[in-house]
Amino acid sequence: MEIPANAYYGIHTARAMNNFAVSGRPVNRKLIHALVLVKKTAAQVNCEQNRLPPHRAAAMIDACNELLAGRHLDMFAVDALQGGAGTSTNMNVNEVIANLAIMRLGGKPGQYELVHPLDDVNCCQSTNDVYPTALRIAAIRLLRPLCDAMASLQESLQHKETEYADLLKLGRTQLMDALPMMAGQGFGAYAKAVARDRWRLYKAEERLREIPIGGTAIGTGMNAPRAYSYRMVEKLADETGFGLCRSDHPMDPIQNMDVFVEVSGLLKSAAVNLFKISGDFRLLASGPLGGIGEFTLPPVQAGSSIMPGKVNPVMAELAGLTALRVIAEDAAITMAAASGQLELNAFLPLIAESLLESLQILDGAVRLFDERCVRGLIVCEDRCSANLRNSAVMASALVAELGYDEAASIASAAIAQGRTPEDITEERDLLTRSRIEQLCHPYTVTKPGIPGQEEGIHDGNA
Amino acid sequence: MEIPANAYYGIHTARAMNNFAVSGRPVNRKLIHALVLVKKTAAQVNCEQNRLPPHRAAAMIDACNELLAGRHLDMFAVDALQGGAGTSTNMNVNEVIANLAIMRLGGKPGQYELVHPLDDVNCCQSTNDVYPTALRIAAIRLLRPLCDAMASLQESLQHKETEYADLLKLGRTQLMDALPMMAGQGFGAYAKAVARDRWRLYKAEERLREIPIGGTAIGTGMNAPRAYSYRMVEKLADETGFGLCRSDHPMDPIQNMDVFVEVSGLLKSAAVNLFKISGDFRLLASGPLGGIGEFTLPPVQAGSSIMPGKVNPVMAELAGLTALRVIAEDAAITMAAASGQLELNAFLPLIAESLLESLQILDGAVRLFDERCVRGLIVCEDRCSANLRNSAVMASALVAELGYDEAASIASAAIAQGRTPEDITEERDLLTRSRIEQLCHPYTVTKPGIPGQEEGIHDGNA
Amino acid sequence: MEIPANAYYGIHTARAMNNFAVSGRPVNRKLIHALVLVKKTAAQVNCEQNRLPPHRAAAMIDACNELLAGRHLDMFAVDALQGGAGTSTNMNVNEVIANLAIMRLGGKPGQYELVHPLDDVNCCQSTNDVYPTALRIAAIRLLRPLCDAMASLQESLQHKETEYADLLKLGRTQLMDALPMMAGQGFGAYAKAVARDRWRLYKAEERLREIPIGGTAIGTGMNAPRAYSYRMVEKLADETGFGLCRSDHPMDPIQNMDVFVEVSGLLKSAAVNLFKISGDFRLLASGPLGGIGEFTLPPVQAGSSIMPGKVNPVMAELAGLTALRVIAEDAAITMAAASGQLELNAFLPLIAESLLESLQILDGAVRLFDERCVRGLIVCEDRCSANLRNSAVMASALVAELGYDEAASIASAAIAQGRTPEDITEERDLLTRSRIEQLCHPYTVTKPGIPGQEEGIHDGNA
Amino acid sequence: MEIPANAYYGIHTARAMNNFAVSGRPVNRKLIHALVLVKKTAAQVNCEQNRLPPHRAAAMIDACNELLAGRHLDMFAVDALQGGAGTSTNMNVNEVIANLAIMRLGGKPGQYELVHPLDDVNCCQSTNDVYPTALRIAAIRLLRPLCDAMASLQESLQHKETEYADLLKLGRTQLMDALPMMAGQGFGAYAKAVARDRWRLYKAEERLREIPIGGTAIGTGMNAPRAYSYRMVEKLADETGFGLCRSDHPMDPIQNMDVFVEVSGLLKSAAVNLFKISGDFRLLASGPLGGIGEFTLPPVQAGSSIMPGKVNPVMAELAGLTALRVIAEDAAITMAAASGQLELNAFLPLIAESLLESLQILDGAVRLFDERCVRGLIVCEDRCSANLRNSAVMASALVAELGYDEAASIASAAIAQGRTPEDITEERDLLTRSRIEQLCHPYTVTKPGIPGQEEGIHDGNA
Repeated sequence: MEIPANAYYGIHTARAMNNFAVSGRPVNRKLIHALVLVKKTAAQVNCEQNRLPPHRAAAMIDACNELLAGRHLDMFAVDALQGGAGTSTNMNVNEVIANLAIMRLGGKPGQYELVHPLDDVNCCQSTNDVYPTALRIAAIRLLRPLCDAMASLQESLQHKETEYADLLKLGRTQLMDALPMMAGQGFGAYAKAVARDRWRLYKAEERLREIPIGGTAIGTGMNAPRAYSYRMVEKLADETGFGLCRSDHPMDPIQNMDVFVEVSGLLKSAAVNLFKISGDFRLLASGPLGGIGEFTLPPVQAGSSIMPGKVNPVMAELAGLTALRVIAEDAAITMAAASGQLELNAFLPLIAESLLESLQILDGAVRLFDERCVRGLIVCEDRCSANLRNSAVMASALVAELGYDEAASIASAAIAQGRTPEDITEERDLLTRSRIEQLCHPYTVTKPGIPGQEEGIHDGNA
Repeated sequence: MEIPANAYYGIHTARAMNNFAVSGRPVNRKLIHALVLVKKTAAQVNCEQNRLPPHRAAAMIDACNELLAGRHLDMFAVDALQGGAGTSTNMNVNEVIANLAIMRLGGKPGQYELVHPLDDVNCCQSTNDVYPTALRIAAIRLLRPLCDAMASLQESLQHKETEYADLLKLGRTQLMDALPMMAGQGFGAYAKAVARDRWRLYKAEERLREIPIGGTAIGTGMNAPRAYSYRMVEKLADETGFGLCRSDHPMDPIQNMDVFVEVSGLLKSAAVNLFKISGDFRLLASGPLGGIGEFTLPPVQAGSSIMPGKVNPVMAELAGLTALRVIAEDAAITMAAASGQLELNAFLPLIAESLLESLQILDGAVRLFDERCVRGLIVCEDRCSANLRNSAVMASALVAELGYDEAASIASAAIAQGRTPEDITEERDLLTRSRIEQLCHPYTVTKPGIPGQEEGIHDGNA
Repeated sequence: MEIPANAYYGIHTARAMNNFAVSGRPVNRKLIHALVLVKKTAAQVNCEQNRLPPHRAAAMIDACNELLAGRHLDMFAVDALQGGAGTSTNMNVNEVIANLAIMRLGGKPGQYELVHPLDDVNCCQSTNDVYPTALRIAAIRLLRPLCDAMASLQESLQHKETEYADLLKLGRTQLMDALPMMAGQGFGAYAKAVARDRWRLYKAEERLREIPIGGTAIGTGMNAPRAYSYRMVEKLADETGFGLCRSDHPMDPIQNMDVFVEVSGLLKSAAVNLFKISGDFRLLASGPLGGIGEFTLPPVQAGSSIMPGKVNPVMAELAGLTALRVIAEDAAITMAAASGQLELNAFLPLIAESLLESLQILDGAVRLFDERCVRGLIVCEDRCSANLRNSAVMASALVAELGYDEAASIASAAIAQGRTPEDITEERDLLTRSRIEQLCHPYTVTKPGIPGQEEGIHDGNA
Repeated sequence: MEIPANAYYGIHTARAMNNFAVSGRPVNRKLIHALVLVKKTAAQVNCEQNRLPPHRAAAMIDACNELLAGRHLDMFAVDALQGGAGTSTNMNVNEVIANLAIMRLGGKPGQYELVHPLDDVNCCQSTNDVYPTALRIAAIRLLRPLCDAMASLQESLQHKETEYADLLKLGRTQLMDALPMMAGQGFGAYAKAVARDRWRLYKAEERLREIPIGGTAIGTGMNAPRAYSYRMVEKLADETGFGLCRSDHPMDPIQNMDVFVEVSGLLKSAAVNLFKISGDFRLLASGPLGGIGEFTLPPVQAGSSIMPGKVNPVMAELAGLTALRVIAEDAAITMAAASGQLELNAFLPLIAESLLESLQILDGAVRLFDERCVRGLIVCEDRCSANLRNSAVMASALVAELGYDEAASIASAAIAQGRTPEDITEERDLLTRSRIEQLCHPYTVTKPGIPGQEEGIHDGNA
């Protein structure tokens, strides 16, 4: 096997590139970044604890810094879909760091007597403890902006809740005309769902903080002194600011992947909300004239060439499509996690790719949906009013006063004559106009209570 | 549509039975039980607050008590798979309670002037707030024994951790011979995973406590006085002891189903652990002679008729099979939750069936796996010892002292000659027997540190 | 372990009932029926080939006939979710047949010297060949009515295609007003999708016909003479009329479950169509006044108590909900099939339950959706016409003649003034009324071609 | 919005790049290739039929050829995850072709009066018919090499079937020692499963051949003359050699995505087989000394640094991991297909990405698994023999002759004394050595029939 002259990777990487040529996509860059951070920290700790001579450690640390700055990313070229439980990715990182360090020491790539990919870069480590440690760090790094994106979406929805607090519209159950509501109440319901997502993702970080560094191959810690493990956790926690802590039994996080299933499950909950909310937006914006047409979403790009002026709800569609992708990634993570055997899970690279992908695309989709759809959304008062009036659901407000039968008769007449239940009621001399207006007042019909019946103080009315 | 003479349900139920004849399975009994509890509580509150006369309320409460005691379950015969967002189940419950109450008042089923299924039993309610409220109560009721079952499984695993703390065996990564470990350490890793499940499920209860009772059809609360909602939550919390609280915006839990997706996702995490652990048990018990054979699982029933004496790991298989079922139920819940539209989710009955089923079967499987498999499991010392010795992985303990090349040569010779690395090392006069024994001591090879190198005080050795 | 006095099952069943108490649901009755049919056929063949004395075989065959007639179903009480790859279900069947035969011979249950569950009922068999054979038979038996149901649904849709061939309505892409279409064309598109389902399911039967009977425990056929296997296939094919054939390498169907994944995948395709079509029905029937309102679905049961006169699209919802269930069952089947190991798949009972459930519920849902929703559906001409007119999409027909800019200006004016593009065009003196009518003629705008441009003979106009 | 000076795309692409910045991955290149092919064909047809002047058509065709040769791929930079049902990808292709053609005509990018992206490149087309047409072409193009890869894998397995036709080994059910078998029989079972995959995928192509070209926006064909559609299909069929045919009702394939669900379901069946087979390989290669160790997989790269000489089954792991990915892609395709609404499916870009990804990675994984794992696999005769002998399953061959009890006693003794059942039987003087050898002869124990009983002519012995 030949290695290209200008490559900084070595034979293990080259073999892996050749063996795993499946998807054509490289390993997620956030994972590479986190792995390099772990390696840099290990070089520092191993130097401190006299397992690495200072000059060699310094060269390795410099090499890591170069990579952390985003250089040489093309050297990490092993396929994202790979066998070997991540060993090839770890070796890729080891080799690139070693060769960069060697060059800093005046050597040529491959002169491993200067810096050795295993003895030096991988010192006190195994893929099996390093990889899940780095994955946790990469995941937390992506989780934080996602939390921010959720917070921002929640705020945008709350703004709409306030903005449309008094805009009366039709509420629908099973897509059928049901009861009046305020448009703002609807946004409030969405905001509450997103608030739960935000809280969940905030809590998810805790689940990712326990790292198995120092567990080496199977979690027993052979070849990694306790002092190394303690110091690694301390320094990684400092470096990242993520509140990382040491697993008290690294054999567990090395073989059990339920934490990633849990976090992915929470992402899936968020995806479900995103799919539902964006779907509602598309429904309410449908038409705009031959559909429901109550929302106008900000136009962001032209629609069809055949149909002039057509504008599609593409940002809401992007949110929905991304949500489906996140749900599918969860399926991959779940099956891969369940397929672990004994002291290791051979499918960890799939878990890593799917989890990091989910975090990234959900962040992107939530942000874009928020910025380019939710914030600029307008609720069309005319249309809301027309749909509500046509529907005759206001008759519900008369039930308590007039009884079901009369209310139903009023509703039928209203629909048949294209008039409002209020008008029919007045015409029939059943109630005075002022009483009708009291019963059908927007605040009466959209808040708790039986229309026409007062709640006393004992009702705890807030 | 004819209603059988001895039926306590009414026309709405009969129509629904006819319309939804799909699975042949009735609605989950835990859901029916919780719905009846809500109805009973509503009768009490409506009586207290003068919306129901005492004698009628008393008859309804008696009827509910009869049902809560487990009678007349065959009257709840609408198919578990149903359209209508649960309305038919709610109506079924309304009708049966009404008719039972009517009979207590001396009437005949159908004399709704005595007790009306809607005006009386469903007073201040809608399917849309009652059903998700009852579902949460039913789910919590099932969650608690599941938590207990998990706690018990964790304990059993911890007992094994202690019992086999000193039994040396082979650790395997990617199914290949890797490093020595203590059998107890393996159980410890399983116990930690189950401990996380236990904690997750314990926390999941919190997510289910917020109930939308009083929100009625779309969450605005029309037809339900505030006093009713407050009192309902208070009484339901008392009755169940579940710490229930009132949603401050019931429109949210009526239309957003993410909480069930979240809880199901946590059940799925537990299922993944169960599948992995039970799969490991099956692997380690494989053979028993032509496989790995390190575990002996308690025999619970005969295996094959063709192969005398064959005993299969059926309890571990049951655990794995149930885990797959829970994962599939999660797929149903996820898709159903994502498919909600506007102010309601029409597929709530599927979410209910799948969530309650998952809770029930996971409880059963965990309990049976614990009692009939984990507790009686025996680790076979002879077999562990033989597999370890054959594998020559003990050579890893010599690496730090002798270098990789020598250790590799020793391992090869050991394998070739069917002897231990220790013997080869002694034979080659590389180390003294006592040094060899020190390096390969069970405690040396299964705990953190580089074999043969002392950790100083500065190492923070605990 | 005690066996109830009136039980016809034996100790193996009793133990399994006790070990697998998880879901509370018994094994699918169609599977039991098919297993009994296999047992009856085996008794006949073993008698013919002198492995069973005639009087004993006769008693066993009588017992089987009794069970095939639907009696004693409560004796098959092992849980549907079970470990053991189906052994307990097979033993349950063996024991019940043996005991019923024993009673016919004047003995008491348990006198296995008269008829032995293993030596006699299970003669030349293993669970491992009998169970997948019976599962195939049960699946084909359910597939046939499902094919009929699909054919019927296709016909109903085609009736609607004809009925509404000339009813012009609005076509929508991404839920936005797009182009005019005939309502009939829409039904035609649904009918084509269902036609594919029908064809797929028809072909699926072929995939299920190859049975591994005679393969015994691992497919090598130990203990089953070739003559037995050949005769079994012949007789089972005759008995069922299903065109069954013998696997030429039974080791394959005993361990590989891909055929069930394939068939379930086809059911999933049908489920996807059902979800989409029923979802469209719900959208088009939404409102009816505050939504799209173009379809009126037959009312089959009352909707809400709070909202008088509300009728919900429950049959379309049932179809959608069932479709989601089928998709989830596919997930179970897929994971279970992938989890097979070596010469057997321990999770076959899950595959069986999920596949038979999918077949049954899809049949029920398709049938009910067809009969109670599709056939009685009415397309509301007024509403279709109003939505189309409001939308101004008819301006698209003017593009080729007047250019995009003019057409867009006309559309804008039409929308602003609440008039039709045709009227605006005439008013602006751009085209004569007759030319406008030609361009906007329903047949012009809903069929291939550029409005206003003739296609010559060379166009291959059919 | 600024467009970079050196870009060949236009404003629609630039907006879409900006709107859909989610995954960072561009649209699958196979889809771009197929879209360009459709555009080239449309230019030819539109020129033939006098809708495009020859010089403009020639420039467009040259531009397409340049792209088909693989140039300018970086101009297709819209994110793979996008809203808009594919419109942005279609517009990207339209703009790049237009600008390249403009440059050939001496103009500068953006001089759309020379060649217009919509009027010229998109003439008679809509995204909605072009995109699903191109997707089918791209999918077939990927399906064919996958079929070849499957055929090759099947052949490799059949070679092993022949090579190891006489190597006796232990068969295992539920991972427990079961019955003897020939190693070759096992490979034969795998080959049969793969043969089904091959056949399925071969048939899948038929499902993809019906293309909706000419249906334009909703399938009615407005703006596309019949002559155009007929000629397009004819030329695309010629160009690709794929036997493409015209949908007789394009409204169907434009809105119904079940065909992609079906094809993905077949890929999933193949994935399930691949997961199972590669899992078996890993099990049988486990150890190699402390596990089952019956297979030696070709070493393709080093394993661990901590554990010298460790080689992992990475190619089998890659196969399994890829299979899980394919199953997850199927989940995405299924949900996206089910989420279509009315005349279009907004999530088609997700279906496209997932389907093409599945086809590509399955092809890669099957090929690599075949070439680097299956072909070089060696079955270890010694280990097979040792595991079989240790297991004492050969006692099963004695059952018919000696009865269960005696056979069971022999098996117990054999296990206890570490000897073979044959030796114990001889020692006990139960059978002569020659009779024992006859009963336990490898061919007797691995083929149909009751050991020791002759099958007569009437047995139909083949």
